Amino acid sequence: MTKTMMIVKTLPEVRQARGKLPGPLGLVPTMGYLHEGHLSLVRRAKEVCASVAVSIFVNPTQFGPKEDLSRYPRNLEGDLSLLREAGVDLVWTPDNEDVYPPGFQTWVSVENLTLPLEGAVRPGHFRGVTTVVAKLFNAFTPDRAFFGQKDAQQAAVIRRMSLDLNFPVEIEICPTVREADGLAMSSRNAYLNPQERQSATVLFRALSAAKTAFEHGDKDAGHLRALVEFTIAAEPLARLQYVSCADFDSLEELEQIRGRALLSLAVFVGDTRLIDNFILG
Amino acid sequence: MTKTMMIVKTLPEVRQARGKLPGPLGLVPTMGYLHEGHLSLVRRAKEVCASVAVSIFVNPTQFGPKEDLSRYPRNLEGDLSLLREAGVDLVWTPDNEDVYPPGFQTWVSVENLTLPLEGAVRPGHFRGVTTVVAKLFNAFTPDRAFFGQKDAQQAAVIRRMSLDLNFPVEIEICPTVREADGLAMSSRNAYLNPQERQSATVLFRALSAAKTAFEHGDKDAGHLRALVEFTIAAEPLARLQYVSCADFDSLEELEQIRGRALLSLAVFVGDTRLIDNFILG
Repeated sequence: MTKTMMIVKTLPEVRQARGKLPGPLGLVPTMGYLHEGHLSLVRRAKEVCASVAVSIFVNPTQFGPKEDLSRYPRNLEGDLSLLREAGVDLVWTPDNEDVYPPGFQTWVSVENLTLPLEGAVRPGHFRGVTTVVAKLFNAFTPDRAFFGQKDAQQAAVIRRMSLDLNFPVEIEICPTVREADGLAMSSRNAYLNPQERQSATVLFRALSAAKTAFEHGDKDAGHLRALVEFTIAAEPLARLQYVSCADFDSLEELEQIRGRALLSLAVFVGDTRLIDNFILG
Repeated sequence: MTKTMMIVKTLPEVRQARGKLPGPLGLVPTMGYLHEGHLSLVRRAKEVCASVAVSIFVNPTQFGPKEDLSRYPRNLEGDLSLLREAGVDLVWTPDNEDVYPPGFQTWVSVENLTLPLEGAVRPGHFRGVTTVVAKLFNAFTPDRAFFGQKDAQQAAVIRRMSLDLNFPVEIEICPTVREADGLAMSSRNAYLNPQERQSATVLFRALSAAKTAFEHGDKDAGHLRALVEFTIAAEPLARLQYVSCADFDSLEELEQIRGRALLSLAVFVGDTRLIDNFILG
């Protein structure tokens, strides 16, 4: 059975195409340069939804002025062929002007959850994320939307936003997909040269070291953070930006782990900034 | 033909009740204490929509700390009977906790349009308005929503919000409904004692004086503002808070009126703050 994948550019086209799709509709928002992580979201969406839509948009408002917006990797033709193969029904590839037309001035902001971690080192990042996701939800009116656990704080923030604003969308967070050596899949891995690519496994190694300690009974969040720090420090090409061991729901930093915790970190490998996390407990 | 009006309290009940209503659905958001202005919105909604929903919620987040939240007039039984008579299908009367549950932390903000006028003298007001309206849109998923021109800046801000965030909702702004002597209908008119009620016509008189000058060819926005000032100054119980003659779309203050303009003012009559406006051109 083959069917045609609709590819649209403007909001009215999205609405029209969406109207033709049988529900429930699953939405997978992406910034393109798709990898197995994205495709795992699409496959999960196919499992539980009658139709699947994907957006490909490198959202400028979630990049800081000194970040990698202009060199963020793109491969639209490759992406579309992967999505076609995966059986996606509708793809939105808007231009910046389709999403942020002249006069645009409305923002969706989540407060407490965006203060630590990525929010602390990437001011304005989450405001860009929540605003564009709200726009995507209203454009597609999906029944369910799929995000990766790799961006753990983003997942928590979007869940909060959707709950707080009554979006009639189920948010499903899917497990991080990893390379064979443990590196979390990310479009930004494309920035790594071969040496850096090898060093980049240090995020997974550091998280694994802390997890092993945790599973052997160490519930002291400070110890676990220190274990991560030591592991990163031992890797010449890597520089730790932050490590956090926080309450899974509130993202508040912990002293002792009692319930579920999020162990997360951001690391520069060469000039490339990578993030990763494990859920503990 | 009689039918039952559904009255619900929680968000799940709204969703369930909404599912039973044939589309298109019209939504009239209110803070209750309903008057002819609200009812004109309901009647218009009935004209163009198969089903009509009304929300009654005195939204705390759009009141400043020194404003009249605690004494805002309420009359739920009277409101429900008016809405029943008007043939409304669904009414949502949430408690504060239904709209702002513990942990709530997401806000919708419109930037430039909220800076002048009401936004300047009521900091945070429009953030409360846009947030609750976004929530109402997502709760009811209406096809069309109805607001009064009396709150002119609110109308512009909600239109912008809905456009910017891709809400699939048509925004319709309906004319201000007035008492026989010109006073714009407002729940806050209930605060006025008989003397103040008489003085309160000064808003309409001031706007009318400026409109007459405009129609006789005076396009100088400063003249029109001065006319309003003089008229208000001559009324002993009234104190002008602001008068504005601004571009209708951007709400930027004008020197000369070329296109459509919004002439608006806020006046304290005794302790009661009233607003009104005329569209010029």
